[in-house]
Amino acid sequence: MEFAEKRLENQHLYQGKMIDLDLETVALPNGKKAQREIVRHPGAAAVMAVTNDQRMVFVEQWREPLQQVTCEIPAGKIDSRDDSAEAAAWRELNEEAGYTATKLTLQSRFYSSPGFANERMYLYWAENIQPVNERLAMDPDEFLRVHLLTMAQAQKQIDAGLICDAKTLLAVEFWKAKMRDVN
Amino acid sequence: MEFAEKRLENQHLYQGKMIDLDLETVALPNGKKAQREIVRHPGAAAVMAVTNDQRMVFVEQWREPLQQVTCEIPAGKIDSRDDSAEAAAWRELNEEAGYTATKLTLQSRFYSSPGFANERMYLYWAENIQPVNERLAMDPDEFLRVHLLTMAQAQKQIDAGLICDAKTLLAVEFWKAKMRDVN
Repeated sequence: MEFAEKRLENQHLYQGKMIDLDLETVALPNGKKAQREIVRHPGAAAVMAVTNDQRMVFVEQWREPLQQVTCEIPAGKIDSRDDSAEAAAWRELNEEAGYTATKLTLQSRFYSSPGFANERMYLYWAENIQPVNERLAMDPDEFLRVHLLTMAQAQKQIDAGLICDAKTLLAVEFWKAKMRDVN
Repeated sequence: MEFAEKRLENQHLYQGKMIDLDLETVALPNGKKAQREIVRHPGAAAVMAVTNDQRMVFVEQWREPLQQVTCEIPAGKIDSRDDSAEAAAWRELNEEAGYTATKLTLQSRFYSSPGFANERMYLYWAENIQPVNERLAMDPDEFLRVHLLTMAQAQKQIDAGLICDAKTLLAVEFWKAKMRDVN
């Protein structure tokens, strides 16, 4: 912990719906001061959901920060309705994709962008997925379309730039590894 | 593109050293309005650098947003000194790790957190790495230590939570895949 920075001051610059922004003043290991811009995020959950015939569930949606449509695995932030990351994963699998499962297993958890954000992503593997009987209502500002893609189709969407975010690329890599273990 | 949101207004909330924060008002596909918090980031480059004896280069550093030390592959934002993502990758490989290579090849590029940030990460594979003769000066507020880890050691650091960010987990997965292709 000899590298640890010591927080001297924390200025709240913005409190938003999805994120907050703070500006910290820290003491560096050499005693000097520096400033750190920090995006605070409640964390998020994502689900790798593969059908019996080996197709993974993706959601196509507009991403305003990127100014493009993306294909991502079902995911969303952990919010006040969720008492755990796993609860958020179950909710998003239903809400965004219209699927449920017999079990969700934590496959990995990671920070998306450790240089400036504390967002942590919890990535689950879903067992025995099937369409839900009762689908939860989506957020009123969400518009998306569900796609079931084989691994070859997913690879095409990576090459085409539609699958283009870290969690989804990791999900595809983990899926490949699982397929290899099975075969 | 039927999902596309239309930007109606963009309010600059914060202009920082590493990131800016904007609040956009958009028109949704159904004509209603919504707000989008968007972190603007110049993009970043990261390097998978593996020695001849099959050890990957990691840098240990304090991450103030996470309040912990992490082990990550060498990486940094694309800044005014860089005329490309690749230039940033060469620079960070030298500055942070003290290594150079005969060639850098783009392995993957991805968005870290597409829900609220436009940060794009360019991930390079380095060929034939070797220690540099002349090391570039580090940023004055950077303190870090270089580690060369075998794949088994890297896996231990994943299990221990020190390797804990998306780009580094992806780098380890790509490394595994390359090792399998060779063997």
